[in-house]
Amino acid sequence: MTPFKLTDELLEEIQLLIEHQNDVDLRAKMKEFHYADVAEIVNELEVEEATYLIKLLDSEKTSDILTELDEDVREAILNNLSPKEIAGEIEELDTDDAADIVGELPKEIVQEVISEIEDREHAKDIVDLLRYDDNTAGGLMAKELVKVKENWTVTTCVKEMRAQAENVTRVHSIYVVDDDDKLKGRLSLKDLLTTSPKAHIKTVYIPKVDSVNVNEKPEEVAKIMSKYDLEAIPVIDEIGRLVGRITIDDIVDVIREEADKDYQMAAGISQDVEADDSIWELTRARLPWLVLGLFGGAAAAVIMGGFEEMFRQYTVLFLFTPLIAAMAGNVGVQSSAIIVQGLANDDIKGSIGSRLIKEMLLALLNGVILSALLLIFTWFWKGDFYTALAISVSLIAVIVVAGFIGTFTPLFLHKRGIDPAIATGPFITTSNDIFGILIYFMIAKLILGI
Amino acid sequence: MTPFKLTDELLEEIQLLIEHQNDVDLRAKMKEFHYADVAEIVNELEVEEATYLIKLLDSEKTSDILTELDEDVREAILNNLSPKEIAGEIEELDTDDAADIVGELPKEIVQEVISEIEDREHAKDIVDLLRYDDNTAGGLMAKELVKVKENWTVTTCVKEMRAQAENVTRVHSIYVVDDDDKLKGRLSLKDLLTTSPKAHIKTVYIPKVDSVNVNEKPEEVAKIMSKYDLEAIPVIDEIGRLVGRITIDDIVDVIREEADKDYQMAAGISQDVEADDSIWELTRARLPWLVLGLFGGAAAAVIMGGFEEMFRQYTVLFLFTPLIAAMAGNVGVQSSAIIVQGLANDDIKGSIGSRLIKEMLLALLNGVILSALLLIFTWFWKGDFYTALAISVSLIAVIVVAGFIGTFTPLFLHKRGIDPAIATGPFITTSNDIFGILIYFMIAKLILGI
Repeated sequence: MTPFKLTDELLEEIQLLIEHQNDVDLRAKMKEFHYADVAEIVNELEVEEATYLIKLLDSEKTSDILTELDEDVREAILNNLSPKEIAGEIEELDTDDAADIVGELPKEIVQEVISEIEDREHAKDIVDLLRYDDNTAGGLMAKELVKVKENWTVTTCVKEMRAQAENVTRVHSIYVVDDDDKLKGRLSLKDLLTTSPKAHIKTVYIPKVDSVNVNEKPEEVAKIMSKYDLEAIPVIDEIGRLVGRITIDDIVDVIREEADKDYQMAAGISQDVEADDSIWELTRARLPWLVLGLFGGAAAAVIMGGFEEMFRQYTVLFLFTPLIAAMAGNVGVQSSAIIVQGLANDDIKGSIGSRLIKEMLLALLNGVILSALLLIFTWFWKGDFYTALAISVSLIAVIVVAGFIGTFTPLFLHKRGIDPAIATGPFITTSNDIFGILIYFMIAKLILGI
Repeated sequence: MTPFKLTDELLEEIQLLIEHQNDVDLRAKMKEFHYADVAEIVNELEVEEATYLIKLLDSEKTSDILTELDEDVREAILNNLSPKEIAGEIEELDTDDAADIVGELPKEIVQEVISEIEDREHAKDIVDLLRYDDNTAGGLMAKELVKVKENWTVTTCVKEMRAQAENVTRVHSIYVVDDDDKLKGRLSLKDLLTTSPKAHIKTVYIPKVDSVNVNEKPEEVAKIMSKYDLEAIPVIDEIGRLVGRITIDDIVDVIREEADKDYQMAAGISQDVEADDSIWELTRARLPWLVLGLFGGAAAAVIMGGFEEMFRQYTVLFLFTPLIAAMAGNVGVQSSAIIVQGLANDDIKGSIGSRLIKEMLLALLNGVILSALLLIFTWFWKGDFYTALAISVSLIAVIVVAGFIGTFTPLFLHKRGIDPAIATGPFITTSNDIFGILIYFMIAKLILGI
């Protein structure tokens, strides 16, 4: 398959069809595309055009389109729809997607939208899901699942399952619960079909099933599902009752978002912006980190000011401050990144102490190699061995300390229950700039005997 | 479920059981754990202990354990197994996992291992898969799938499917091919069951199915599958023949690896190291980027050397070089990271020109705010308005140029077909350090009229 590519020509063609209200061709055109592709198109339309298109198409397709839209586009379109129309869209969605959309609606219309949903069971499930924090398994799960009671006979079970399966797009597993709805295990379709119709489920089910608690963090659910290669996992509440189910496609989104967040943190961007966001949104995400860098730079300037006398005598030392600061920053980012990634993947074993010793040995090895290069360069350039030596020895110390800070900070934050990812990027480069410069000057002063 | 946590006590207990060759308790103990958890344990054992454990357990379980092990641990264990034993493990695996393991074996034993595999069909499929580059859809796919011919009757189809399904752990879809094995569409189980047994498949199948080419890059496959929420996708060769199938669990791994790679690149770490790798491996991954930073720092020193006279007069300018370099680096990393991420997610629309203009406007806005802060600070600290102004105005220019370089470089690399991720991290900070310092001194010189 050739992946869908939204061209300017296609966009213009669609905008023209909308402008001329050529509904027949518009419907035909849209029929060609997958809903995820239509969402890409709608993201680029004006709000009025988008609303026109959404109202024109069947809600079976538009409901899926809505779930794939950028949040701001979706909000704008829903603003143009009546509660009844919104309810119509929601009716078509699985409960997890439905609850996500309802959760974004202005508070004052939520109740009206819910009351317009015809399928009352569906409405109840959505209201249930709204209770859960987005950042939990409960906020991720759907109510659609197939469950049977352990006391049922195979015959009852097959009959009930048929009814339940109608609401479930993909049946991954059949879950077994007791009379209190507590999750007991799962049922294999094969066993079900090869057992006598009068047998009780109790005698055929597999009493072992992985599950997650409704308060579990999405990252943890993602880890469990990808470690154990699960395509779906049941969610239980505090007392073990089966309350929902999470499928792998939602987990793929969690993994992507998690990775994007860590990546942006490391780059000094507060989470949740995209290249296409407005200049104002991008500024809000980026400026705080730059201000932090500015403060760090100002602190470095003040520290350097304390050494002004030394510099009048050994101006050459000044020339290497950017190099020292850059190396301290680079080593710090390398060390912290590898720790943050290791923590995210549960790869960090052993004590903090042994981790720190390893990192400092590594930094020492790198530092010696780099310092040797720098010594040769500076000696040849300036012809003064002792100055070159002072700069090079300082570089070793700076690199070792930078490695230490870069390793210790995320481990410490993690122990304290704080997201270690904030220790990457500008935070670590700024603090390492300051420490690096301070160490550099003090050691140089010592060696040169100033 | 409480996630499995490997404790020191558990590890010791298992090591003791191995030492005493207490096979009964060892087998019982291992039965409690999922193979992915056993793999975690085996990763921590000595090679002899690990080999003992692998030889003890059933190959049904050990084959799965082997796929989950760290590559070096797996290699060491396989080294201790005979070709016949290795073949026994491979026999139990799906073709994609089997081919991955065979691909890692020393060349001289591959043929022997293959010839020891009893199921010749399985062996043939593995050899087929070995032909494909790891970095393609072909390297990712498995041969296990359910396919039926369009000319078959429903009866033949059901019979054939039953035989095929035995080898397939999870049937995601039934694919329909013509007599030349060309992929024509897919079949819904429901349609199959509700059609007359004598009807031909041709009359009931859905003639539309997403597929990927065998040479497609894994990242592209991941994008397609997660965009269209697919749990499996068929793979076709150059002339459209169905050759394999990729499932979502493999894609989860691709997404994770892709994210890890980009993250490490941004942190100045060449791909594919973990916190637990040896100091030597970590040095190889990190030192090249540090050497790049060292060269950049040396270049900055040489540039600054050209302005030595100016600094004797205006020492205060020197004090702000780390600040300027840090801000240039931070802005550059922010800009490049957002572009690299946008490119990875296919979010970058519009021309390079408009993207550059937007980024420079953004940089200008940030730059003006930051410069105002810096102006106030420097003025109060040093009491000299013109010097403070010179430094602040330079900062604006530096930030705008840094934003330009950070945006342009990844876009340019991407256009050239080079991975834009290399433009993040040390590469961008180093070049921005140099440009930043150069611009700073030139503008300061101009304003102060030196």
